[in-house]
Amino acid sequence: MPAPHFPQIDTHRLWQSLMDLAAIGATELGGVRRLALTDLDRQGRDRVCDWLREAGCSIRVDAIGNIFAIRPGARDTNPVGVGSHIDTQPSGGKFDGNYGVLAGLEVIRALNDARIATERPVAVAIWTNEEGSRFTPVMMGSGVYAGAFSLEHCLARTDLEGITVADALSRIGYAGTDQAPRFAAYFEPHIEQGPILEAEGMTIGAVEGALGQRWFDLELTGQDAHAGPTPLAMRRDALVGAARVITEVRRIAADYPTNARGTVGQLLVSPNSRNVIPGRVRLTIDLRNARAETLAAMVADIQACITRIAADERLAAQLTEVVHFEPCHFDPHWVSRIEGFARARGHTVRRLASGAGHDAVYVAKTCPAAMIFVPCEGGISHNEIENAQPQHLAAGAQVLLDAMIEAAGRAPASN
Amino acid sequence: MPAPHFPQIDTHRLWQSLMDLAAIGATELGGVRRLALTDLDRQGRDRVCDWLREAGCSIRVDAIGNIFAIRPGARDTNPVGVGSHIDTQPSGGKFDGNYGVLAGLEVIRALNDARIATERPVAVAIWTNEEGSRFTPVMMGSGVYAGAFSLEHCLARTDLEGITVADALSRIGYAGTDQAPRFAAYFEPHIEQGPILEAEGMTIGAVEGALGQRWFDLELTGQDAHAGPTPLAMRRDALVGAARVITEVRRIAADYPTNARGTVGQLLVSPNSRNVIPGRVRLTIDLRNARAETLAAMVADIQACITRIAADERLAAQLTEVVHFEPCHFDPHWVSRIEGFARARGHTVRRLASGAGHDAVYVAKTCPAAMIFVPCEGGISHNEIENAQPQHLAAGAQVLLDAMIEAAGRAPASN
Repeated sequence: MPAPHFPQIDTHRLWQSLMDLAAIGATELGGVRRLALTDLDRQGRDRVCDWLREAGCSIRVDAIGNIFAIRPGARDTNPVGVGSHIDTQPSGGKFDGNYGVLAGLEVIRALNDARIATERPVAVAIWTNEEGSRFTPVMMGSGVYAGAFSLEHCLARTDLEGITVADALSRIGYAGTDQAPRFAAYFEPHIEQGPILEAEGMTIGAVEGALGQRWFDLELTGQDAHAGPTPLAMRRDALVGAARVITEVRRIAADYPTNARGTVGQLLVSPNSRNVIPGRVRLTIDLRNARAETLAAMVADIQACITRIAADERLAAQLTEVVHFEPCHFDPHWVSRIEGFARARGHTVRRLASGAGHDAVYVAKTCPAAMIFVPCEGGISHNEIENAQPQHLAAGAQVLLDAMIEAAGRAPASN
Repeated sequence: MPAPHFPQIDTHRLWQSLMDLAAIGATELGGVRRLALTDLDRQGRDRVCDWLREAGCSIRVDAIGNIFAIRPGARDTNPVGVGSHIDTQPSGGKFDGNYGVLAGLEVIRALNDARIATERPVAVAIWTNEEGSRFTPVMMGSGVYAGAFSLEHCLARTDLEGITVADALSRIGYAGTDQAPRFAAYFEPHIEQGPILEAEGMTIGAVEGALGQRWFDLELTGQDAHAGPTPLAMRRDALVGAARVITEVRRIAADYPTNARGTVGQLLVSPNSRNVIPGRVRLTIDLRNARAETLAAMVADIQACITRIAADERLAAQLTEVVHFEPCHFDPHWVSRIEGFARARGHTVRRLASGAGHDAVYVAKTCPAAMIFVPCEGGISHNEIENAQPQHLAAGAQVLLDAMIEAAGRAPASN
């Protein structure tokens, strides 16, 4: 059991900070629309930086706009980090990303309240453009931090209106020049964004790693033709082909072992007229698996299906890979310690894999890293009705606090 | 064989009139974009009316904007009509509709050249808004003419910008007040818009009727969720359901006898984001058959499929019928005469069913009516690359001319 004066997360304060931040870009349905590097993102960044400064942190901003709020340690060495993002999906929720950042703020506040000094500095990171809704690639800030993308490449990326990341950063005042710190260890608390913890009645997920992801764009081209006079045998219907591809993607997700995922999330029909046979369909394919070799087999399977379907339906098929993340494995020591802290606090805990990518996946390339999941209602996220329980959010933040104190080391000057 | 002085279609003149009209709203890819009741439609109407006036016709415009150009007969009685439409799809071609109108013009010119007088007047009709691309319902002008829709209902219909048909007619100067003539007989030449004549090397289609059509909107509602963390068993993926519906629509088109058609032409995914499981899909279903009872069985089949798929996939399904045309049967006498005229002119001819609706389907409710099809390249229409051969267009116009002279009767004063 923790010592009597061990610092404690304030459930209400953490919840209130989430609600206050959610007011910036609040939607009518109770969600948040705060796209990366918009004026609303600036307002959110300013608000969180104010809170972190008030909590005694110094703020650094790097060239891709990542923010690092640093609470000094007894030693001037690599900090222990916590972080996530505050940009949202177009119809996003209050918790995705925001929870990781504000749990970090709550850790700082709890350390302050308990007058705890740490050996290592403690840092809260706010990574730029995790969602990728406005600018691709997703997880841009942490990706640049970890060397997965070049800074120059990302600064030159444009949104649908042709605005570059570099311009957008300048406009909101977050084109920084500071050096990003390297972490001794990194933790990222997050809502699960899936239904498993809730369905099993668990409070804490000790995240072993993240599924590998292979994302594709598929364009199927047939021939527009009038829906009435064209007999079946003479059709080259791109949407019929697309329907078969969607069905195969679902079969693959069902057939392959252990956390296989397959999703067609986006589909555009051309000319998309009620009485015209669709001549062209563009769609996305998202395949995920915890094992790289299984993921490769899933990709080979859908490639073979597409070739067969295109031949059957007399379509041209162009498949382009747009994202390839290998499966990520978090630091086994810290995964195990998170399990231990959760149990020591009396919480139910299970190990699981993250189905989604997170900034922690990139940061894990630079230091020992781990994630802490808490349940979200109905497993729903990337949605305005995304919801989570205050006591679950506090439980995750408490496990985070315990882990960060262990990683940063308690300094002799502590209360 | 026709008499020596029997009037002849001028292949080049007919072609040139098609090309001249196609210049109004011409697209870069060689098609035409001339949406109903736009300024381009006005320019097209003005041009064709000028040609018809020059050919000695008087022009009447009725309250829904239908134009009737009348060449007087020896007797002041019901004219024999020919017609079609000159509005186009957003990415339309040069021939759909335009051919029927300009074949009518060519008939008038050929009668004039040969100094033929007819017992009955001969009329060319230009029906308003056949395509339905800007305003629904489709075949609006001929539908009002035949009493299928009320004038008031159609005048109040709005486009996406909220402009009413009444306003659009006034703006282009075609809100007429004339009485529409009733026809003694009506003919409509048209490109086939399908591949059958071309595939079989036939020049003339004697159209026995038009397939019945049942059009539906289907909305499938599941649950948006993150594509990564949500296991297959916990998904309610509206696009997976839609893919199954598309596959069943195609199966139905393959399974049912004689000219069955089934098409999903339009599909919209929400939220349509690459890494979000689609929570909602709206799609259209278009079923057609030459027999009403078979068409009803096809509808019952897809309804049962949708119920089953919605239950399997845990989706809500809302199916709404938006169009219901019974199969149309053209006048058997004139179908047979068209076959006869085609053979007499030395053309290959076959009977077929129109897969598409045409103004003639409504006009057939008011008088004996028939259609004459000619081949179009690749069976493609509703497309900028729609194409047809000058000699086929002339052959169809010649059969039209022969039929109209027989229907109108040659007056003693004829040359």
